[in-house]
Amino acid sequence: MTITPPLQSVRWAETHLDLLDQRLLPEEIVMLPLTTVEQVWEAIRHLAVRGAPAIGIAAAYGVALGAQAATQEEPQAWLGEIRRIADYLATSRPTAVNLFWALDRMTHCAEKAAADTSLSLTARNNALLHEAHRIQAEDEEVCRQIGEHALTLFEDGMGVLTHCNAGGLATAKYGTALAPFYLAQERGIQLKVFADETRPVLQGARLTAFELQQAGVDVTLICDNMAGYVMSKGWVQAVIVGTDRVAANGDVANKIGTYSVAVLAKAHNIPVYVACPLSTIDLQTASGADIPIEERPESEITEGFGKRTAPVGVKVFNPAFDVTPHAYVSAIITEKGIIKPPFHVNLPKLFQ
Amino acid sequence: MTITPPLQSVRWAETHLDLLDQRLLPEEIVMLPLTTVEQVWEAIRHLAVRGAPAIGIAAAYGVALGAQAATQEEPQAWLGEIRRIADYLATSRPTAVNLFWALDRMTHCAEKAAADTSLSLTARNNALLHEAHRIQAEDEEVCRQIGEHALTLFEDGMGVLTHCNAGGLATAKYGTALAPFYLAQERGIQLKVFADETRPVLQGARLTAFELQQAGVDVTLICDNMAGYVMSKGWVQAVIVGTDRVAANGDVANKIGTYSVAVLAKAHNIPVYVACPLSTIDLQTASGADIPIEERPESEITEGFGKRTAPVGVKVFNPAFDVTPHAYVSAIITEKGIIKPPFHVNLPKLFQ
Repeated sequence: MTITPPLQSVRWAETHLDLLDQRLLPEEIVMLPLTTVEQVWEAIRHLAVRGAPAIGIAAAYGVALGAQAATQEEPQAWLGEIRRIADYLATSRPTAVNLFWALDRMTHCAEKAAADTSLSLTARNNALLHEAHRIQAEDEEVCRQIGEHALTLFEDGMGVLTHCNAGGLATAKYGTALAPFYLAQERGIQLKVFADETRPVLQGARLTAFELQQAGVDVTLICDNMAGYVMSKGWVQAVIVGTDRVAANGDVANKIGTYSVAVLAKAHNIPVYVACPLSTIDLQTASGADIPIEERPESEITEGFGKRTAPVGVKVFNPAFDVTPHAYVSAIITEKGIIKPPFHVNLPKLFQ
Repeated sequence: MTITPPLQSVRWAETHLDLLDQRLLPEEIVMLPLTTVEQVWEAIRHLAVRGAPAIGIAAAYGVALGAQAATQEEPQAWLGEIRRIADYLATSRPTAVNLFWALDRMTHCAEKAAADTSLSLTARNNALLHEAHRIQAEDEEVCRQIGEHALTLFEDGMGVLTHCNAGGLATAKYGTALAPFYLAQERGIQLKVFADETRPVLQGARLTAFELQQAGVDVTLICDNMAGYVMSKGWVQAVIVGTDRVAANGDVANKIGTYSVAVLAKAHNIPVYVACPLSTIDLQTASGADIPIEERPESEITEGFGKRTAPVGVKVFNPAFDVTPHAYVSAIITEKGIIKPPFHVNLPKLFQ
């Protein structure tokens, strides 16, 4: 199957949902054709789709797919069917906030459609499909805007280092941190990207290097411990990463290793940019100290490549995230523009 | 087979040479019983033994082993046999400096033995075996002295981070950077060691974590990109690493990632110690800029452990080493003591 760059991880295909199986990347590019709600549930549950926005989009299409099998002409009975579909899909990944957000939005759309008694069953189902399309389109637009703002910070010929995967695979299209690379590519602006492989799960090697390579972006894969050396060679003029949560003071939680990259960047006078939608900024979290850091299974480190690479029984520390204090963050790039320090003043302004 | 800590990678066993097969670590602890010079050659060639001092010791025992099969009673004919054995072993790893140094020393010993016409064939062969024992004992003593000096820098309860493997497996017994941990363990001094896994070849996970665990040292394995986070938690009071070459100005070449660790340590006000024998200090090399950095095959990063973890055809940068400028080095620890900055003044004094 031909993939048009940037690779789309979730794609509605007239009568069914095509989902890129991210578990098989980068070895195999397989689109799963999903024709039932149960298949969508399985795909979300078993990580064929990952990345909060992508999961939300897949779930929204899951509701639209389920509606096609709905049999109740009577609006309220139909609404009951849709609610059951949404409730069922909500059980696929109990901790994914975007999943619930997308399902709530689809349920809300179904309520409005059911209230309009002039609509036929087909028209109500179409309304759901359109809502799923809108969720996808809005996410794509947010990512594009983030990319546009980020691109103003880069110049032709610059080297930019990124960590983990905040790319198109995790979102509707462009990603967040990777969005400016796709826009630069579309416009013939040459950027040289360095992708940290991002141990232990290697999202940088498996996903970032893969999706940028697919799109024809100039990307070089390095091990995480090479970032400092590459900076010392003068090859990197900027760092850009995504984030899982931004605190009110500008502290940034992201994949483990982001803090090391930020400290190394500062030591080399390289700016660190964090790209994210407004929905990732949490003014209820005062600082990074209030963000819990999940610890993950030891096996990700001791046998992450299939083969055991560490002694049995060795003590392991495997934090999934770290917090980069705001002093290391040069700017936060959102769909509303580039936010500069002081973040405790400028972040709240975004929401006024 | 019972292994007494610290694990010995090369061990003379009365009639043959036992060699720990480092390729199988940490999954399997296999001692290869080598009974012929050809087997020693194979073991060196195919990396069953690694680490410059350990290779030299294995080669020295290889000569002693070969001498046991020597048949010439006549001293000069015997010397010819020994020379052929040494020349043959020298072809096993053409770039290993310690290999040639050890073989030269064995040949020199053979020359002296052959010149003493009062010696029988057995006595001459015993002289070679004793010389091999001496090489091993001297290396062990150098490592022990390095460990003693290094230990004066550590206090009970401290956390110490290390990168790659400069341990007992690479030397006669204690290693260089790991020597103080073994001595501390013998004396009941509690040190908490953090071992970087050290991508791409994972010497930290496979070897350092393994040998320290075997010895009962408190070691925690982390991914390289977690070093900054662990430092930020206040868990690390010192960094200690080995080195492949120290330049006259104190710049230090070591496994890739050492530079990143040193920059991170400086940002957290943590001292960085480099442990090595005098033979590693090269006054002929003015600075780190004169040290060539070997680039290694891409496959180490893209499919390092059997399974492919990066897209086919992706560009990869894989330097095997980096140079840490002397400004990041707090002290260099040798068998002659602890050398402090200014290194360009204090290193030459060692050799006067």
